[in-house]
Amino acid sequence: MKASIITIGNEILKGRTVNTNAAEIGRLLYFSGYEVWRGIVVPDKPEDIGEAFRLMVSGSDVVVSSGGLGPTFDDITIESFAREFNLKLVLDRNTYEHIKLLSEKRNLSMTDERVKMAYIPEGASVIENKVGTAPGIYISIEKCKVFILPGVPAEMRSMLPYIGEVIKLPNSFYHEENLRVAGIYEATMAPFVTALMKKYDGKVYIKTHPSISAQGGESYLDIEVSAHSSDIKDAEMKAKKVIDELKEIAESIKSKT
Amino acid sequence: MKASIITIGNEILKGRTVNTNAAEIGRLLYFSGYEVWRGIVVPDKPEDIGEAFRLMVSGSDVVVSSGGLGPTFDDITIESFAREFNLKLVLDRNTYEHIKLLSEKRNLSMTDERVKMAYIPEGASVIENKVGTAPGIYISIEKCKVFILPGVPAEMRSMLPYIGEVIKLPNSFYHEENLRVAGIYEATMAPFVTALMKKYDGKVYIKTHPSISAQGGESYLDIEVSAHSSDIKDAEMKAKKVIDELKEIAESIKSKT
Repeated sequence: MKASIITIGNEILKGRTVNTNAAEIGRLLYFSGYEVWRGIVVPDKPEDIGEAFRLMVSGSDVVVSSGGLGPTFDDITIESFAREFNLKLVLDRNTYEHIKLLSEKRNLSMTDERVKMAYIPEGASVIENKVGTAPGIYISIEKCKVFILPGVPAEMRSMLPYIGEVIKLPNSFYHEENLRVAGIYEATMAPFVTALMKKYDGKVYIKTHPSISAQGGESYLDIEVSAHSSDIKDAEMKAKKVIDELKEIAESIKSKT
Repeated sequence: MKASIITIGNEILKGRTVNTNAAEIGRLLYFSGYEVWRGIVVPDKPEDIGEAFRLMVSGSDVVVSSGGLGPTFDDITIESFAREFNLKLVLDRNTYEHIKLLSEKRNLSMTDERVKMAYIPEGASVIENKVGTAPGIYISIEKCKVFILPGVPAEMRSMLPYIGEVIKLPNSFYHEENLRVAGIYEATMAPFVTALMKKYDGKVYIKTHPSISAQGGESYLDIEVSAHSSDIKDAEMKAKKVIDELKEIAESIKSKT
């Protein structure tokens, strides 16, 4: 099952904001058993947003976007999405009342910009925003589950448990183990990693992350072993076995230097 | 002039690592006067890497990638890039000597994995790696300047000044001013922002960033005004003028509440 992540906003592209939303969404998708296949960042422009959704929906079982749901002129995610897939926008009564209530509490009038946030694509479900104003959206398009979330991290984050429930897979389990070794270079470990992955026939994934010290040398090497399986015990057992083999390899490398 | 950013690595997609590289590259491109048009993240797979380069090169004047240049089995950026554009890989003598010297210093042998890092696409220039082992690559493809950088942030960062020099535009100046206001909601400010941008006919870009407090309310609003121009004084003047107008608007909103 494949998943992808869309981030909408000029502030991400020009590096004003670091894309922590994509990382949080990626973790949810990965730990739910999905293969995260693409991340894409597009500016606040209708054609670019439409194109991103079209591309990601056509290749994924789940798409999660964040950004562009607020009240300003460049918050155009919903309109752009709806236009791309020929969906009408309809007023969601509950959302309208929620926004009105919030506005009254704050002594603000219902401007066009605030009313806009209550319009959702036909056939979509609303994901309640417990932190802010603009709701999230969930809709099925061409067998793909699409979730459209706000860009403000606290608001985005508050909607992740909802997504986790909807995308839950019945029989996919995941286990990850980590090992840190000192004094072994990534390039020295590389051929052993390649051989181990071959031995386990692609059922285990091993990734090495060297840490570079301020002086430019590699100070230690983090080794990450992950296994997916339909059986939780099996996933755990495989990952642990590979970690044991890596420990032996590391010791034998060290004893030779 | 359009620019785009490619990030290569499963660890970014599944949220193990936050994509700070893309933000640093985005800032360089933006402040150099480019419109950052796309960011894309792909897994460590040859077809996906090739597709990303093909897509980004076809729509951009400058493409910068990071990730996948090290010695491990899944560091395949250079091979995937070269295959996509039908380029031969050739041994770069200087790089080979650099890697050999580093390896000897560390008492390590020249494994296949280390030698691999000395192969570059024909016609490419090497960007020296002053921090680690794998060099960066600069090559022109179909009128697009392509820069291929390592994923380790310190190594990637050390190569940005080189890129800055190569992509420098002769007559593009940029000025940004920021204003922080308290007690005004983004949605209240939104219609004024729309009107101001219309007034300046697209020559000035205004973006609002609400800060959400832990209690869920907006605690203040950051307003960012940016102007690009062929004249540095003109860019600065435009941005400052808009900031002055925004200050007046903010005061008049506050005096009414």
